[in-house]
Amino acid sequence: MKKHLKKVDLKNVKLNAGLLAQKNKLVRKEVIPYQWQALNDELPDTEPSHAVENFKIAAGRSEGEFQGMVFQDSDVAKWLEAVAYQLTVNSDPELEKRADEVIDLIGEAQQEDGYLNTYFIVKEPEMKWKNLAECHELYCAGHLIEAAVAYYKATGKDKFLNIMQKNADLIESKFGPEADKLKGYPGHQEIELALIKLYEVSGKEKYRDLAKFFIDQRGKDPFYFDQEWEERGKIDHWDDFHQNVKRDYYQAHAPVREQKAAAGHAVRALYMYSGMADVARVTGDQSLIGACKQLWDNTTSKQIYITGGTGSSVQGESFTFDYDLPNDTAYTETCAAVALVFFAQRMLHLEKKGEYADIMEKALYNGALSGMSQNGKRFFYVNPLEVQPEVCEQREDHKHVKPTRQKWFGCACCPPNLARLLASIGSYIYSQNEEQLFVNLYADNQSEFEFKGQNVEVSQKTNYPWDEEIEIKLKAEKEVEFELALRIPGWCRKAALQLNGKNIDLTEIIEAGYAKIKRKWQKDRIKLILKMPVEKIYANPEVREDIGKVSLQRGPIVYALEEIDNGKNLPAVYLADDAELKAEYKEDLLGGVTVVKGSAYKLDKDSFGSSLYSTQKPEFKQIEIQAVPYYTWDNRESGEMLVWLNRKI
Amino acid sequence: MKKHLKKVDLKNVKLNAGLLAQKNKLVRKEVIPYQWQALNDELPDTEPSHAVENFKIAAGRSEGEFQGMVFQDSDVAKWLEAVAYQLTVNSDPELEKRADEVIDLIGEAQQEDGYLNTYFIVKEPEMKWKNLAECHELYCAGHLIEAAVAYYKATGKDKFLNIMQKNADLIESKFGPEADKLKGYPGHQEIELALIKLYEVSGKEKYRDLAKFFIDQRGKDPFYFDQEWEERGKIDHWDDFHQNVKRDYYQAHAPVREQKAAAGHAVRALYMYSGMADVARVTGDQSLIGACKQLWDNTTSKQIYITGGTGSSVQGESFTFDYDLPNDTAYTETCAAVALVFFAQRMLHLEKKGEYADIMEKALYNGALSGMSQNGKRFFYVNPLEVQPEVCEQREDHKHVKPTRQKWFGCACCPPNLARLLASIGSYIYSQNEEQLFVNLYADNQSEFEFKGQNVEVSQKTNYPWDEEIEIKLKAEKEVEFELALRIPGWCRKAALQLNGKNIDLTEIIEAGYAKIKRKWQKDRIKLILKMPVEKIYANPEVREDIGKVSLQRGPIVYALEEIDNGKNLPAVYLADDAELKAEYKEDLLGGVTVVKGSAYKLDKDSFGSSLYSTQKPEFKQIEIQAVPYYTWDNRESGEMLVWLNRKI
Repeated sequence: MKKHLKKVDLKNVKLNAGLLAQKNKLVRKEVIPYQWQALNDELPDTEPSHAVENFKIAAGRSEGEFQGMVFQDSDVAKWLEAVAYQLTVNSDPELEKRADEVIDLIGEAQQEDGYLNTYFIVKEPEMKWKNLAECHELYCAGHLIEAAVAYYKATGKDKFLNIMQKNADLIESKFGPEADKLKGYPGHQEIELALIKLYEVSGKEKYRDLAKFFIDQRGKDPFYFDQEWEERGKIDHWDDFHQNVKRDYYQAHAPVREQKAAAGHAVRALYMYSGMADVARVTGDQSLIGACKQLWDNTTSKQIYITGGTGSSVQGESFTFDYDLPNDTAYTETCAAVALVFFAQRMLHLEKKGEYADIMEKALYNGALSGMSQNGKRFFYVNPLEVQPEVCEQREDHKHVKPTRQKWFGCACCPPNLARLLASIGSYIYSQNEEQLFVNLYADNQSEFEFKGQNVEVSQKTNYPWDEEIEIKLKAEKEVEFELALRIPGWCRKAALQLNGKNIDLTEIIEAGYAKIKRKWQKDRIKLILKMPVEKIYANPEVREDIGKVSLQRGPIVYALEEIDNGKNLPAVYLADDAELKAEYKEDLLGGVTVVKGSAYKLDKDSFGSSLYSTQKPEFKQIEIQAVPYYTWDNRESGEMLVWLNRKI
Repeated sequence: MKKHLKKVDLKNVKLNAGLLAQKNKLVRKEVIPYQWQALNDELPDTEPSHAVENFKIAAGRSEGEFQGMVFQDSDVAKWLEAVAYQLTVNSDPELEKRADEVIDLIGEAQQEDGYLNTYFIVKEPEMKWKNLAECHELYCAGHLIEAAVAYYKATGKDKFLNIMQKNADLIESKFGPEADKLKGYPGHQEIELALIKLYEVSGKEKYRDLAKFFIDQRGKDPFYFDQEWEERGKIDHWDDFHQNVKRDYYQAHAPVREQKAAAGHAVRALYMYSGMADVARVTGDQSLIGACKQLWDNTTSKQIYITGGTGSSVQGESFTFDYDLPNDTAYTETCAAVALVFFAQRMLHLEKKGEYADIMEKALYNGALSGMSQNGKRFFYVNPLEVQPEVCEQREDHKHVKPTRQKWFGCACCPPNLARLLASIGSYIYSQNEEQLFVNLYADNQSEFEFKGQNVEVSQKTNYPWDEEIEIKLKAEKEVEFELALRIPGWCRKAALQLNGKNIDLTEIIEAGYAKIKRKWQKDRIKLILKMPVEKIYANPEVREDIGKVSLQRGPIVYALEEIDNGKNLPAVYLADDAELKAEYKEDLLGGVTVVKGSAYKLDKDSFGSSLYSTQKPEFKQIEIQAVPYYTWDNRESGEMLVWLNRKI
C-alpha cells in the first residue's frame, strides 16, 4: 500500500490568477488589515472586539477589564495564523513586524508556568481548568498553537512556537491518563488538530498522545462536564448553560468510535472529526479510521446542503437528523464550511478518494466563500439557501438569518477563520507522498515539489472554475518517476485528457476519482478538459424541503437567484425540466463570474387577483432568469435569494 | 335601514343530528365530565390543574398554596360557562347541583368588597391591580362574568350573576375616566365582551361604558404597562416579560381606531376585535365600526390559514405580517379559531354580510373542531397544516407543534374554550331581528322564534356538511310576515332553492351572500341544495409557503392527508390539476365523515437511489390518495399530516 498523502508546503505553491488567487489576494490586501482594525476596536459602528486590549491588560501594559467573549483570544490567534500564511508566500516586513509585536505581547501575557488565556488571567484566575465545557480555554490554546506553528514555518522564528510549547507542556501536565491529572477534554474541540501540528513540527510524541487522550476521553461515563460543574459549585458561565445543553452538543453523548451520525454543534463536530482523522493518520488506529469514515459518510450523504453547508439548526448551531435540511432557517455557519474543508483534506490524506476532494471543493467554493463579501469587509456568519428579508426581519424563527452581510460580529469566529483558510488555500491544491502527486483543486499556479531528491516544477494555467480547460506543465532537470493523480471531479460527467498532445483514455486510468499517470516526467504538458455544462441538480425525495425543486450547478459552483436580477417573490419561479440554460462569463460582474441564464416561469399574482384563496389557478408567465454563483450573493443589493427553484412538472 | 341582527336564545335551538349535534353531545357526555376531572386533578399522568383547589384555598376551605397559571381561575369559569349552555338545552339536575356548589365556592372565595381572583387573594394580595399587563386579573373576571350571565340565562338563578355584578362594580370603581380611577386596561382582552353581556342582561350602562373605556384607553401614550411596571418597582410576573414584550403583543401599539393590521397575540387580538364589535353595536360608534372592518379585512384576507386558523408564529402566539403563513410552524391556537368564530358572529351582527358567516363556518369546522379528539379527551393547542412527527420532536423551531393530541395542558385555555363554543353552538345557527331571520349555519335542528308576537317553528333536516341538501320547514299558528335569509356560502358555486316545491331563481334574491325571501309564512317547506363538488383551492402566490400547492375542500370542510391512509413522506405527493377526485361518505369512519379519494403522484425515492443530490430526476409513481376532514386528523394513529399538496404543473 502506498503511503498516506500529506499536505504540501504552502511556500511551494504560488497562486497566479483566477478565483482562488483573487480571494487569497483579497485576504492579504483587505481582510488582514480590516480585521486588524476590528481586533483593535478601530471599526466604526461595530461592536468593539477588545481582543488585543485583553492581551495588553493580561500583559500588564493596560489597566482595565477583560471584555468580549470568553474565547476572544482566538480571534487574535486566527488573525496571526492568516498573517503567517501570507508571510509564507509574500514577504511583508511591515506586517511581520506587527505580528512580532503581537507575539511579544502574547509572550508578556503568558504566566510564569506557561498559562496563557487572557480571560482567566484577567478576570477569573481562580477558575482555570474548572469550566472546560463552556470557557474555551483549550480551544483558545489550540488556535494559538496553530498560529504559532504556522508562524514558525513561515518565518523560521521560534519565539511564538516556544511560547505555545510552554503552554502545551503546561496543558499536558494537567490533562492525561495519569492518576494525578484531570480527565477532561475541550468543550469546543480545536486543540486536537493543533497538538498534531505541534507534534509534527516538534517531533514530541506527548503532544500526539494528548490529542489522542482528548479524543478517547470524550463520551465516557460519568460525564466529565457534569463532574466539573458539580465540583465548581454548579456555576455556569452562560446562563443555565449546563442544564440546557445536552451531551451531543459537545459530541460527548458516546465515545467517538461509537458515534454513528454527525451530531451537536457543527463546528465542534467537524473540528473533532478533523482531529480524529489527524490522530488516526499519525497513530494508524483502525477503529478511529472507521469512526472517521462513518461520520464522514453521515455528514456528507445525509446532513449536508448542496452548498457544502452543514448544521441545519440555529438551536445549538447544530446538526439535526438525516435529510433535515431546511433552506430558509439553515444555520450553515461559515466556520462549519471551513471546518468541513479541514475534515475533507484530512480524510483524503487518510484515504485517496476523490469524493473527499469533491466535498472539499464544494464547501470551499460555495458555503465557505459565501461568508465574505467581494470587498473583504462584510461577512455572513449564517449562510442560508433561501432568504426573504421581510421574513428574516420579522419572524423570530428566522432571526438568526441576516439578509445582509455584516461588518463584524460580537462572536467573530467566522471572518478570521475564513481568512486563515483562504490565506493558506495554496496548500489544499496538491497532496503528496514520496511516489505520488495528487492534484486536488484546479487553479492557476506555479509550484515546486521534490521527488527522489529532484525538484519538479508544476504549473497550472486555467481560469477554473469558470473555464473547462486546465493546462498543466511539469518540468524537471532530469527525468523522475512518480505518479501524477489528477482529480476528475464527481460533478464532471465528461472529461478529456491529453498528454503531450496525445489523447489518453480516461476510463482506463481513473481510480477512485483520480486519473493516474505513472511515468517518468521531465518536460511534459497535460491538457485536461472538465466539461461544465449547466447542470440541474435534484435532491433525494427524503429531503422534504427540496421536494419538487431543482438547483443549478456548473462545475463546482452552485448558483442562486437574486432579487436584483430576477425581481421579488423568487419562490414563485419555476424551471421546466427541459429548460435550456446557458453559461455566460461576465468579466465586469462580481469580480468576474460565469452567470447562468435561461427562460423560466413565474406564478403570476396578477392572474390570481387579490383573494387569499381561490378555486381559480394562478397562471404562469414566462420570464428570463439570471443566476449568479451562490457565494457572490448580497454583494450588489440586499434582497431575496434562492438556491432551490421549483420544477415545473 | 333594518335593525342589527342579534344572537338568538340558545334555549330556542335544539340540535337533532349531524356533526354539530354530535360535537355538542360529546361536550355534554364526555368533555364536561372529563374537564371536571382535570380541574380537580383527577386525571392520571397529566399536570395537575389545581384550579378548583385554588378557589377552596381562597374560600378558606383548604390550606395550601395557589398553584397553576395566574389565570387558572378562567378554566373553572369556562367550564361553568359550558355547563350553563348545556343546562340551557338539556336538563341535568346532578350537573346543575355540581355547578351550584362551584358557584357557592366562588361566592365564598369572593372578598367583602367584591374582589375575586384566587391568585391575588391567596398569593399576592398586595399586588392587586398592579400588574394588568401580565396577570390576567381582568381576563379572569371577564370569563367569570360570561359564565355568570350564561348561568343566569340557563337556570334563572341569580346568585352567580350577583357575585359577578359585585365584582364588576368593584372593577368599575377602580377603572374609568374619572381622575381618581386607574387608566389601565387588560393585559389579555376578554372582559370587554363580558361587560357587554352584563350590560345587556342587567341594562346597566356603566358596564357598557367600562367596556368602551377599556377599548378606547388601549394604545394611548404614555404606555400604561410601562407606567404600572415602574410603579410596582419593575417587578415582572414572568421572567423579563416587560422588557421582552412589545406593545403590539397586547394590541397597545396604537389606539384601536388607528390599527390597520391584525397584530400581536392572536387570541388577545380577536377577543379585542370581538369586544370592539360589541361596543360598536351597542353604541353605534361609526369610527369603531370602521376599525372593526379594517381589522376584519386584514385578518381574513391577508393573515388567515385556509383552516380558519390565525396566528402564524409561536413567538408571542401571534399574527405576523401579510401573507406570512407557514404551514409546519403555524401556531393557529385552538382558542384563536374559537375567538374568530366570536368575532365573525359579531361582525355579522354589525353588518349583514355572508362573508362573516363564511369565515365563522370555516373557523368552526376546521381550525376549531380540530382542537378536540373524536372522544373528547385529547386536545390540540396548536393546529398546524403540516406535520412531520420527527421534525416536531427534534427541531427546536417546531417544538410548539405537538404531533399528537394531548391529555391536558399546563396552560389549559383551549379545551374549555372549545367546550363553551360547542356547548353554545346552537346560538350561532340563526340570527334574528324583528323583521328578519338569518340562517347562518346548516345543521339538523328544531327551533322556535317569535315574530310580531307569534311563535314560528323552524326546523332543518340535513346531514350537512356531508350532504348537499337541506330541508327547512316553517310552521306558525297564524301566518306572519318576515324575511327569511338563507346563507349561500361563499364556497358554493352552484345552489338551488325550492319553496313549497317551486323553484326559485336565486340570482334575483341573493344579497350579500344571503338568499332573501320576504313573505307571509305559516306552513312552508324549503329545499336548499348547496352543490359540494370536491374543490381544488389555490393560495395567492404572495403566500410563499403555498406556492405551487393545492388544497382540497368540499363544502366548508378542508381536507388533509394522513400517513395512516397515504404512507410516509406526504410532502412528496403531487396532484395533477385535472385529477378527478370523488367524495365518499363513510359512516364508520371518524364518527361518519365524507372522505375524498383520487389518483395522485408521488416522487419515488427508489427511482432516485441513495444519493443526497443527483443530476438524475426523481421519477413519479402513481398512487391513490384518501383525504380526511382536517379536523379529524390524529384520531386514529399518530403520523404525518398535510393540507397543502404539490400541484403537478
